[in-house]
Amino acid sequence: MPPTISDIKKASKRITGYAHHTPVLTSVSVNSITGANIFFKCENFQKTGAFKFRGACNAVFSLDEKIIDNGVATHSSGNHAAALALAARLRGIRSYIVMPENAPEVKKKAVAGYGAEITFCKPTLEARESTLAELVERTSATVIHPYNDFNVICGQGTSALELLEDIAPPDIVMTPVGGGGLLSGTAIAVKNTFPGITVYGAEPSGADDAYRSFKSGKLIPSINPKTIADGLLTSLGNLNFRIIRKYVDDIFTVSEESIVSAMRMVWERVKIIIEPSSAVPLAVILENPEVFKEKKVAIILSGGNVDLSKLPFR
Amino acid sequence: MPPTISDIKKASKRITGYAHHTPVLTSVSVNSITGANIFFKCENFQKTGAFKFRGACNAVFSLDEKIIDNGVATHSSGNHAAALALAARLRGIRSYIVMPENAPEVKKKAVAGYGAEITFCKPTLEARESTLAELVERTSATVIHPYNDFNVICGQGTSALELLEDIAPPDIVMTPVGGGGLLSGTAIAVKNTFPGITVYGAEPSGADDAYRSFKSGKLIPSINPKTIADGLLTSLGNLNFRIIRKYVDDIFTVSEESIVSAMRMVWERVKIIIEPSSAVPLAVILENPEVFKEKKVAIILSGGNVDLSKLPFR
Repeated sequence: MPPTISDIKKASKRITGYAHHTPVLTSVSVNSITGANIFFKCENFQKTGAFKFRGACNAVFSLDEKIIDNGVATHSSGNHAAALALAARLRGIRSYIVMPENAPEVKKKAVAGYGAEITFCKPTLEARESTLAELVERTSATVIHPYNDFNVICGQGTSALELLEDIAPPDIVMTPVGGGGLLSGTAIAVKNTFPGITVYGAEPSGADDAYRSFKSGKLIPSINPKTIADGLLTSLGNLNFRIIRKYVDDIFTVSEESIVSAMRMVWERVKIIIEPSSAVPLAVILENPEVFKEKKVAIILSGGNVDLSKLPFR
Repeated sequence: MPPTISDIKKASKRITGYAHHTPVLTSVSVNSITGANIFFKCENFQKTGAFKFRGACNAVFSLDEKIIDNGVATHSSGNHAAALALAARLRGIRSYIVMPENAPEVKKKAVAGYGAEITFCKPTLEARESTLAELVERTSATVIHPYNDFNVICGQGTSALELLEDIAPPDIVMTPVGGGGLLSGTAIAVKNTFPGITVYGAEPSGADDAYRSFKSGKLIPSINPKTIADGLLTSLGNLNFRIIRKYVDDIFTVSEESIVSAMRMVWERVKIIIEPSSAVPLAVILENPEVFKEKKVAIILSGGNVDLSKLPFR
């Protein structure tokens, strides 16, 4: 069964005191450029620098007492790894993270800094999965999937709950979509609170499996996705897809150029650091101004983890 | 006569509704790295992207009705130009800005966008001053100096007033020092509210005229200052110096390397965009950890206007 609004409210209580209640920012100049009235929900200020901490935290604190001593495990090269490691440390349990050996040094360090036991493997999905399977065989740790997981989806939905507490109901709520954890959790939270709010997903054209799945009605995984929005390379989960089909109004795709323009606009005008994945919803507005004109649009900024040595600005 | 706390309180009322009440941010990871308990007052989120708007706004809205129709004028290549242009537009009066012809395109555009009449000149202080003199001769506009001005100092002091409303009294308040507008306004506000709070100025070694003036007791202008903190190249004003001698406890200087490290730390850990000048106080903490250990330190981040095409990160 997919989560209900009541599950998301429970998640919100569960992670209070661990996760930040993140602020909502607005920018007169972004509004004047886009013609829309935009509210940025800043998960880039969340612990570990991304919304992922909400889901990981809810999953870790939902674990049954009987199995927590075995710890938790996952494979991830990105934000979910750090999120799970910190959540586990906060609950005082072990975490085992499988990371591809070519993961950025800064991410390896962050995960190790939160006290996780890291196992490196070849950078293929097959190696990641088999290494994780061996690890679980050895430790009996509970695997926490980064998005295709009931408790993770509930945690991700808590950001939208906060948003709807902090601002008057917007016309539209939009999030980026990769595996679909954030979009599915957000859609449940929004549609069961204010059914009149439109919910959109925003996806890079170079990794448009959610768009194609949504339009065709069947789950189509990505093959060789390519985008600067590295948080959105993963394919949609089946539980996420089910929720998205039920609650999401539409999915838009955007070019790489628009993603970089939107990211630059947020850095220059809002003065905050966001990662490329966070910029995808604003890129949708830049490419489709007529859809958003004079609309009140809330965007969930997914995270702010970027390598400052490798920026796309010229 | 230098401004009093009562003048700063009047300025605060005068600019309310025009200037943003900026937020104060903290970062668990910056605190853990530095061993201090740091509060960042975010003037990078101020209108025009810098604290300068406070001073310009107070100066423009303090102008006598009899002379406002003549407009206001200044020479500036940086944040004061945009701040004065916007303040003038908000009061519905003309602004005349003298800019060196080699000023960054983005700054020229911003100033023009606020409706200022720009006069370009050769990039020397002499050309800037003579061009401004001719302009004033022609227009009778009132010149608003960027820092050596009573009303500008009052406006800059309003950021510290807000800070002291929003957080419990810190042990130390620290600001960058260039011309001295921010430091002098801050020092008046802090020392006349909580005399027990220590006030420090933070200056790049490559532009250390405030440090040398403070230590020697006489005003020593910079000769060929050089620093990445381009907002701090100007020499201390005499009115600012008088206030700084009276109220400021000490001035620290830091290396260029520390400024870039501190700037990077704020971008990566606090996830906000600050310009190099804003990073100078944190650089002081990084170079002198023993002075700030376990102290509650409030830093006024001066601004967030950077050229993303020319960043110092490798």
